[in-house]
Amino acid sequence: PPGRKVLIVYAHQEPKSLNGSLKRVAVEELSKQGCSVTVSDLYAMQFEPRATRNDIVGCLHNPEEFNYGMETWEAYKRGCLSNDLIEEQKKVQEADLLIFQFPLYWFSMPAIMKGWMDRVLVQGFAHEFPNCYDSGLLKNKLALFSFTTGGSREMYAKGGISGDIRYLLWPMQHGIMHFCGVKVLAPHICFAPEYVSEEKRKEMLIAWAQRLKTLWKEEPINCSPEWYFK
Amino acid sequence: PPGRKVLIVYAHQEPKSLNGSLKRVAVEELSKQGCSVTVSDLYAMQFEPRATRNDIVGCLHNPEEFNYGMETWEAYKRGCLSNDLIEEQKKVQEADLLIFQFPLYWFSMPAIMKGWMDRVLVQGFAHEFPNCYDSGLLKNKLALFSFTTGGSREMYAKGGISGDIRYLLWPMQHGIMHFCGVKVLAPHICFAPEYVSEEKRKEMLIAWAQRLKTLWKEEPINCSPEWYFK
Repeated sequence: PPGRKVLIVYAHQEPKSLNGSLKRVAVEELSKQGCSVTVSDLYAMQFEPRATRNDIVGCLHNPEEFNYGMETWEAYKRGCLSNDLIEEQKKVQEADLLIFQFPLYWFSMPAIMKGWMDRVLVQGFAHEFPNCYDSGLLKNKLALFSFTTGGSREMYAKGGISGDIRYLLWPMQHGIMHFCGVKVLAPHICFAPEYVSEEKRKEMLIAWAQRLKTLWKEEPINCSPEWYFK
Repeated sequence: PPGRKVLIVYAHQEPKSLNGSLKRVAVEELSKQGCSVTVSDLYAMQFEPRATRNDIVGCLHNPEEFNYGMETWEAYKRGCLSNDLIEEQKKVQEADLLIFQFPLYWFSMPAIMKGWMDRVLVQGFAHEFPNCYDSGLLKNKLALFSFTTGGSREMYAKGGISGDIRYLLWPMQHGIMHFCGVKVLAPHICFAPEYVSEEKRKEMLIAWAQRLKTLWKEEPINCSPEWYFK
C-alpha cells in the first residue's frame, strides 16, 4: 500500500539472471502499489562481507583483545561504526519489509549476504539482550527470503536426498530474522531454474509478481520448530 | 597417527581469543601425534569471501550471462581458477581431516568462512553430479566443526529458545560436507565462553586436547535427518 517502505537486499552477480529478474519484478510491482523501494545490490556495491576492526572508526574499547561483537556494540552506541554499516542500518530502520533475493549457495545465502547479516545486525541496533526473538529491536518489521536453488523440488522434499527445504531455513529465518524480532513471511522459492524451459522461467516471474500483489495481506509464519521440523 | 594430514580452516580476528587458543591446541596436539598440520587463517590471509568473475583467470565460457557455478566448473577443468582457490583446493586434496574452527555468527559460520565454502568447493573438484553425498568427490576425508557460541547450552537445548543446536548443523554438516562426500565427526562446541570463568575456559581447552588424543578412533556420525531432528 502507498507509503510502505521495502528494502530488497540482493545478491547476484548478473543482472540477466533469474535472480536479477525477480528483483526487478519486485521493484516494479511494489513501486506500482505506491511502496517506496530501496535496493542494496551487494555485488554492485562490492559490499564487504568480512567482520574486521575496520568496522569501527577510531579507538577500540579494548585494543588488547579484539572482540568483534563487543566492539561493534560499543561503536554503535558511540556512533562510530563505519559508514557502509550506518547506511545499511538506516535502510533497515526505515523499512517495513525486508526482501532477501539470492541464489541458494550451500544450503544458505551467499557469503556476501551472510556478511551483510554479520555486519549490519549489530547488537544495540537489531537486538540487545534480553531483547531478542519476540522482543528483538526490529519488531514490527517483516522479512521474506526469496531464492533460487540448484537442486530440484524432489531433492528438497521430506525424505528427499537433500531433506525438506524448511530444514535449511531455520538458521536464516529463526536464527537471524526472528532473533531480531522480525516477523517472517513464507519463503518464495524457485526450484532449479537452470534446468527448466524459458517458458517455465517466465511463469516463475509471473508467479512472483502475482504473490506480491497480495503480500501485505499475508500472515507471518509461526516461526517455531514445528514449522520447520514437524 | 604419523603421516595423517590435517587442514584447519580458522576464522577469528584475534589470536588471543578462545578460538585462537583452540586452534593452537589442535596444531600442538595433532603435531605431537605425528600428523602434518596446515592452517588456513582466513582473516590473516584476508581471504576473499565474494564469489565473482575474478575467480576465473582469462576468458569466460559465456561472457553474455555470468553464471558463477558454470564458470568456475569450466575454469576448474581448464586449470583457470584464481591462485588463491587453487592453493586452498590443494590443501583440501591432501588433507585426511578438515577442522573448521570459528565463532558461531547468526546460527552459522562467519561470512569469511562461508566464502571459503562458496569459492573453494567448486563443481568438478568437490562434487560433480551425480557424484554428490555418499559418492561426493571428497569421499575418504573427515570433517569436524569446532565452534564457540554466544548463547548458553540451555538456550540451545531441545525446547530452548534457540532450539536444539543440531538444527543449525544441518546446512553445514549435511548440506556442505556430506554433499561433497566428506564424513562428519561429532561437532565440538564450547558454549558461551565469554560468560564463564577463566578457569572454565582453561577446562575447555583441556577437553579439546583430550578429545583430539583419540580422535582417529571416532566413528563418523550418521549424517541423516534422524541425527539432526529426531
